[in-house]
Amino acid sequence: MILLGSDTETKPTRAMRQAIANAEVGDEQKGEDPTVNKLLERVADLLGKEAALFFACGTICNFVAIKTHTRPADVVLAEHMSHIIRAESGGAALSSGVLMEPIASERGIFTVNAIEQALARVTTAPYLYCAMPRLLCVEQTHNFSGGNVWQLSELQSVCEFSRQKGLATHMDGARLLNAVVASGTSAKNFSSCVDSVWIDFTKGLGAPMGAVLAGSREFISEARRYKHIFGGAMRQAGIIAAGCLHALDYHVERLIEDHDNATYLARSLSTIEGVKVRDTNPDTNIVFFDVSQLGIDKGMFLNLLQQHGVKMGRVGQSIRAVTHLDVSRADIDFVVDTVASLVKFLGSAAIKAERKDILQLENVIQFIPA
Amino acid sequence: MILLGSDTETKPTRAMRQAIANAEVGDEQKGEDPTVNKLLERVADLLGKEAALFFACGTICNFVAIKTHTRPADVVLAEHMSHIIRAESGGAALSSGVLMEPIASERGIFTVNAIEQALARVTTAPYLYCAMPRLLCVEQTHNFSGGNVWQLSELQSVCEFSRQKGLATHMDGARLLNAVVASGTSAKNFSSCVDSVWIDFTKGLGAPMGAVLAGSREFISEARRYKHIFGGAMRQAGIIAAGCLHALDYHVERLIEDHDNATYLARSLSTIEGVKVRDTNPDTNIVFFDVSQLGIDKGMFLNLLQQHGVKMGRVGQSIRAVTHLDVSRADIDFVVDTVASLVKFLGSAAIKAERKDILQLENVIQFIPA
Amino acid sequence: MILLGSDTETKPTRAMRQAIANAEVGDEQKGEDPTVNKLLERVADLLGKEAALFFACGTICNFVAIKTHTRPADVVLAEHMSHIIRAESGGAALSSGVLMEPIASERGIFTVNAIEQALARVTTAPYLYCAMPRLLCVEQTHNFSGGNVWQLSELQSVCEFSRQKGLATHMDGARLLNAVVASGTSAKNFSSCVDSVWIDFTKGLGAPMGAVLAGSREFISEARRYKHIFGGAMRQAGIIAAGCLHALDYHVERLIEDHDNATYLARSLSTIEGVKVRDTNPDTNIVFFDVSQLGIDKGMFLNLLQQHGVKMGRVGQSIRAVTHLDVSRADIDFVVDTVASLVKFLGSAAIKAERKDILQLENVIQFIPA
Amino acid sequence: MILLGSDTETKPTRAMRQAIANAEVGDEQKGEDPTVNKLLERVADLLGKEAALFFACGTICNFVAIKTHTRPADVVLAEHMSHIIRAESGGAALSSGVLMEPIASERGIFTVNAIEQALARVTTAPYLYCAMPRLLCVEQTHNFSGGNVWQLSELQSVCEFSRQKGLATHMDGARLLNAVVASGTSAKNFSSCVDSVWIDFTKGLGAPMGAVLAGSREFISEARRYKHIFGGAMRQAGIIAAGCLHALDYHVERLIEDHDNATYLARSLSTIEGVKVRDTNPDTNIVFFDVSQLGIDKGMFLNLLQQHGVKMGRVGQSIRAVTHLDVSRADIDFVVDTVASLVKFLGSAAIKAERKDILQLENVIQFIPA
Repeated sequence: MILLGSDTETKPTRAMRQAIANAEVGDEQKGEDPTVNKLLERVADLLGKEAALFFACGTICNFVAIKTHTRPADVVLAEHMSHIIRAESGGAALSSGVLMEPIASERGIFTVNAIEQALARVTTAPYLYCAMPRLLCVEQTHNFSGGNVWQLSELQSVCEFSRQKGLATHMDGARLLNAVVASGTSAKNFSSCVDSVWIDFTKGLGAPMGAVLAGSREFISEARRYKHIFGGAMRQAGIIAAGCLHALDYHVERLIEDHDNATYLARSLSTIEGVKVRDTNPDTNIVFFDVSQLGIDKGMFLNLLQQHGVKMGRVGQSIRAVTHLDVSRADIDFVVDTVASLVKFLGSAAIKAERKDILQLENVIQFIPA
Repeated sequence: MILLGSDTETKPTRAMRQAIANAEVGDEQKGEDPTVNKLLERVADLLGKEAALFFACGTICNFVAIKTHTRPADVVLAEHMSHIIRAESGGAALSSGVLMEPIASERGIFTVNAIEQALARVTTAPYLYCAMPRLLCVEQTHNFSGGNVWQLSELQSVCEFSRQKGLATHMDGARLLNAVVASGTSAKNFSSCVDSVWIDFTKGLGAPMGAVLAGSREFISEARRYKHIFGGAMRQAGIIAAGCLHALDYHVERLIEDHDNATYLARSLSTIEGVKVRDTNPDTNIVFFDVSQLGIDKGMFLNLLQQHGVKMGRVGQSIRAVTHLDVSRADIDFVVDTVASLVKFLGSAAIKAERKDILQLENVIQFIPA
Repeated sequence: MILLGSDTETKPTRAMRQAIANAEVGDEQKGEDPTVNKLLERVADLLGKEAALFFACGTICNFVAIKTHTRPADVVLAEHMSHIIRAESGGAALSSGVLMEPIASERGIFTVNAIEQALARVTTAPYLYCAMPRLLCVEQTHNFSGGNVWQLSELQSVCEFSRQKGLATHMDGARLLNAVVASGTSAKNFSSCVDSVWIDFTKGLGAPMGAVLAGSREFISEARRYKHIFGGAMRQAGIIAAGCLHALDYHVERLIEDHDNATYLARSLSTIEGVKVRDTNPDTNIVFFDVSQLGIDKGMFLNLLQQHGVKMGRVGQSIRAVTHLDVSRADIDFVVDTVASLVKFLGSAAIKAERKDILQLENVIQFIPA
Repeated sequence: MILLGSDTETKPTRAMRQAIANAEVGDEQKGEDPTVNKLLERVADLLGKEAALFFACGTICNFVAIKTHTRPADVVLAEHMSHIIRAESGGAALSSGVLMEPIASERGIFTVNAIEQALARVTTAPYLYCAMPRLLCVEQTHNFSGGNVWQLSELQSVCEFSRQKGLATHMDGARLLNAVVASGTSAKNFSSCVDSVWIDFTKGLGAPMGAVLAGSREFISEARRYKHIFGGAMRQAGIIAAGCLHALDYHVERLIEDHDNATYLARSLSTIEGVKVRDTNPDTNIVFFDVSQLGIDKGMFLNLLQQHGVKMGRVGQSIRAVTHLDVSRADIDFVVDTVASLVKFLGSAAIKAERKDILQLENVIQFIPA
C-alpha cells in the first residue's frame, strides 16, 4: 500500500529505530532525560529561542501555547481553515476557554488587512462588552490550503502588526521545516517573528512521536507547568526524543524530495481528464484535487483507490495526497497510473448511465484493471 | 438629554414604579416568589413553552442556554455579528468551553445555505478531529444589523434544517417582541421554531431589570441548575418581576411607535448631506448611520452631539440610534435638527481647512448654534 | 406563617418599597446609575476599600472574586463547611477551574495551625506536581456553624499568615454586619484584614436583592470585567440599590434584636426535653438544634411545624432557625410553644409504639393542639 | 547512583529496547497501530473490560476518565492524600471543572462509613445548592500512604456502596499490578469493582512510556474523543507500546522481588537509631521514613545521601524510597549502610553542638566516611 493519506504515516527507518533502541534516558518530567535535553537544546538553537519543551505529539503544543498566552474569555485569531480551529477537536475551547476569531484568507496566508478586519469585528462592541483579542496564530506551512508557505516578509508584516496591537504571536510550525527547505529561509528567521513556535517530528521528518515547543525562558517556564496540568508530562521520553534527533540529522534536507514528488504528482494528475488539481505547483508536500465532476462520492473513490493499493485522504470536499519519506518517485508513477485508470473507468458513459444500480464497491472493483 | 444610545436606557414609568413598590414577593430561588411565578407562567404562555426561568438580565440567559444545550468543546453556530459572539465579553467560551462558528449573512438573517457552509467548515476534518456542532443560535431582532426581523418562513427553514442536522436551536429574543409587533407574527409562532428562547424586559419594554428564558420542562429544569451554578439565583425578585408584568400589560403594543419613530428618524437623517443612513426603512427601532465622509472622528462627533443634548452610541464604525418609550416624535425632530446643524457646521470648508488646529471640542461647541 | 427558614426570607418594608419606587436610575453596567453609584461609594467607605461593584445577589460575588484572584488549576482554601464549598452548586469549580482545599475547624473559625496543615497537604508533592495555593477565604459570620463570629484578632492572625504565604484573602461577608453589631468591631476593621470582601443586603438587612463586592481599585476593575463575562451586568439597578441604601440607613443597628431573639430562642428550645440545641448562646441570628432522639424524620418534623405556622429549614442533619426583621419576640414565643407541643406529642409513648402505622402527616396534624 | 526516588526511574532493559526497536507500527490515533492494538486487547483482557485506550503517560488517564464520568460542577470523591488530588497539578479542576471532595482515611484505604460522611458533607445543602456527587476514585496501590493495597473485599464494599448511591467508580491503578502480585487477587477481580481503571507501565513494570485506560465500550468511545480534545492522541505509538507488551511478558511476576526488597529495606532502616520507619512491613514497594529527630532539614539529608550515591525523594514531611527492577538486594544493603553512616554522623553530639556554623553541605560530606 502506498500511503499518501498524510505525512504522519511515515514509519521509522531501521537507522532511526537503532537510535531509539540505544537512547540514553532519564525522567523527562523532572528535566533529567539527557536525550530529551539534547533535543531541546538543539531545537531551541534551531529556532533561535531561549528555551524549549518536549511533547509526545503536536496538538498539545498548540493547547499549551494558547493556555500560556491567554486567559479564559480572550480571543485567539487564526486563519479560518487553520488546523488549530478545524482539526483539534475543539480542545482549545475546553482547556483555555477562548473564543476563536477566524481570519479570512485565500490560501492560508493572510494579510495585515485581514487581521485589521478581524480585530474590527472583535472590537465592534466597546470594552467590557467585547472579548479581548490576545493572540495571533499562524500555521507554517498551512495544511488545509495545500501546504502553502508563508514568505518571511508576509510573516514579518502580520506579526509586527499584531505586536503593535498588543497581541502575542504563536506559530503552529508542525511543518515549519518543510517551509524552510522550500523557501531557503532559515527556521530561525521564520520563528523570530513569533513569541512561540513548535515543530512536529512525526510528519515529513519521519519520527514515530515527538514535538517541541519553543519560546522565551519565561514562556517555557509557564508552559511547563501547563504541560503538567494538561497531563503531558512523560517519563523516559529519551526513547522517542532519540528518533527526533535522528530526524534532525538525516531527514530535514531530504524534504526537498517530497516537495519535488508532490509537484510531480500534482502535474501528472492535472493531465488526467476529470481530475481537477487545486495547485499544480504546490509549495511543499501536499496536493489537493477534486474528482467531483465524475459524479462519484469521494468516499467511494477513496475506497476504490485503496483497493488498488493507494491510500489518500479527504479534507472537506477535496482529496488530499501528502508525500513523505516512505513515498518514492516510482510510487508516484504507480499512483498516477492508478488514478488515471480509475477515473477513466468511472468516467465511461456506460457506467455513468447505470451507476445508480451497479456502482456498488464490489462491482466497480471487478471492472477496474488492477 | 435625549437618550438614543440604546433602548436599554428606558427608565421605569411612574405606574411601573408603583407596580414595583406593591409587588407581592417571596424567595425566587426556592420558586416561592408569587410575582415571579406569575410572570413565568405568563411568558411561558406567550412563547408557547412548557416552562420558564427568571433572570436579572439578558446575557446570562444566553450563557445558561448554551451551557444547557452543549458540552465543552462543542460548536455553537451563530451569525457572525450576533450579540452572542460580539457583545457578551467572551463569556460563553469561559462558562461553556464552546467554539463559536460564525455564519455569514448580509443583514443578520442567514440562509440554510449559509448554515450548510458553516457546517462544512466545521466538519472539514473527520470525527475525533473536528469539534462537534451542537447548537444553532438566531437573534430576533438582529441588533448589530439594524434591528432586522427574521420572517417566520426564514426562521422555520433554518431551524428545521438545523434540527435535521441534529442541532439544538436557541433564540436570543432580546427584542423578539419588537419583531412580533413589526411583523404581525405571534411570539408563539416565532418561538415554536426553536428549543429555547428568551425575552428581555429592559429594552423597548421599559422595565429596569429582568429577562425570562423559556423551553421544555426538561430544558428549564437543567437550566435552573445552571442558573445556580452561574450565580444567577435571586431572592425577592418579585420586585423586579412586577416591572416586567407591567411592561407586558402596557408596553408591548406601543413598540410600534418606536418603529415609526425609527423610520421617521432614518428618513430625516438621510436627507442631510454628509450623513449616510444604512437603511432608511428599518424593520424595528434601530437606525445606523455614518458620518465618515465628514472626516471627523466618530468619538468626537458623538461627544459634540451629547454637548447639544443628544446621546447616541457607536457600534463598530457606525453610529447607532435606538428609539424607545422615553423618546417622542418631538424628540426626534430635535435630534434631526441637531445632527443637521452639527453636520453642516463640520462640513463647512472654512472649518475643514483649519480643523487640525481648532477642532478642539471646546471650540467646536462654541461655533454650533445651540 | 413565621418564617425562620433563613434571614433571606425578609420582605421589604413599606418604607423600603417607597425608597425603591422613588429611586433615581441609570444604566448600571455603564456605571451610570446614580443610586448604584451612591451605594457603591457608601459601601466602599463602610468597608474601607477603594472601590466596589454591585450585584443582584451574593453568590456571584464569591465567583467573581475567586475568578479575579486565581487562575485555573489554582487552590482556594476555605473552611470545610463554608458556604463557598457547600452551598454554591459547585459554581467556582466550573467558572474558575479551581480546587477547593477544606480547612478543618470546630465552629467555622479556624486557626493558623489549620491553614498550615492545609498548605502542607496541598504542597505534599513538589512544584509542578502540586496545585498552587492562591487564595484564602473566610466567612463572616460562619453560616453552617451557627452564625459564629470571627473575632478581629482571630481574623488578623489567619489573614496575616496567609499574606506571608503569598495567598490573597477574600471574605464572604454575607452577614458581616451581623458580626459588626455582635462584636462591636467596625466593618472597616474586619475588612482591612482581607483583599476583597462582600456584603449581602438580602439577609438580615431586609432588602429584596443586592450585594456589593469591594476591594482595591485594580481588583474591582478586573472584577468588573468578570462580572460581564459571568453575565452579572445589569441595567436600571438603582431600583434594587435603593433598597440596599435604605437597609444601610435603617436596618443595621437593629440586627442586635435578631441576635437577642436568637439567643432567646436557643435558650427556650434548650429547655424542651427531646430538643438538643447546638449552642444556647449563639453569636448572632442563627440557631441550630436537633430532634433526632425523637426518632422522627427531620423532613416530617419540619412539615409538621409548617402545618402549625412555623417554617424552619434543614442544614445537613440539623434543623436551622434564623431570626430577622420579620420575626418579633412574640413570634419567638409562639415558635417555642409550637415546638414544645409538637415534641411533647411526638415523644409520647403511645405514639411511639404505633408510629410505623399511624404517623402519617395527616394523622399527626389532627393530634397536635393547634 | 542507586535510584530509589521512584519506581518511575526504571530504565528499559536491553531486551525491552530490542522489542521497541522492532515494533511494528501504524497511526495510533486512527486506531491503526498494530502493536498498540495488541497491547489494548491484552490489557482489556487482563482487566476484564470491553475496551481500552493507550496514552503516553498515566496522569492524563485520570483526567480523561474524570472528564468522561462527570460534567462541570460535579463532585469527585477521592481519598484525601490520593495522587489525583495531591500530585496532578490541579489538572482535573481545569479540564473538568469538578470539585474534589476528600475522603478521610488512615492509610489510603477508606471505608463505606468514610464515604457516607463525605456524601453527607457534600449534600449538606439541598439540591440546587449542593454540588452533585458523581464519581468515586480509588487508588490501588495507594502511593502516598506507602503503597498500601486495597483488599478485594474492602474495594467491593466501597464500590458497591457508591454504585447504590448513583456514583460512577474509577480506579487509579497506576500500581495495580503491584497489588495483584502482593495480594494474589487477580487484576480482573480488582477491576471488576470499578467502571474504569488504568495501569501504568512506567513504574515497577519498567517501560519508558505508556499507560492504558480500560472500561466499557461506550466509556472508551467517549474517552477516546476526550483523548483528542486533551491533546493525547499519538502517531506511531507502537514504538512505546512494544515496551509495555514486553513489560507484561517479563516484568509482572518479578514485582514480588521489589516488595521483598522494600520489606527488607524497611526492617533494616528501622534498626537504625534516629530513623523512624512508618511501616516495617510495607504492602508493596514503597517505604516511608522520617529522620526529623536528627534535627536536620530533610532537603539537606537527601542531598547528603545523594552525595554518597543514594537518591531518595520527599513526600510531604517524610522521606520516600521506592524499590524497582533497577534496585537489587545488594543495592539495598549499600543503601542501609549509607543511611546508617549518615545518621550516625549527624547524630553525634559534637556535630549537633556546632551545627549552626559548620553544617554546610561541603563540610558534612568531608566528615562522612564514603
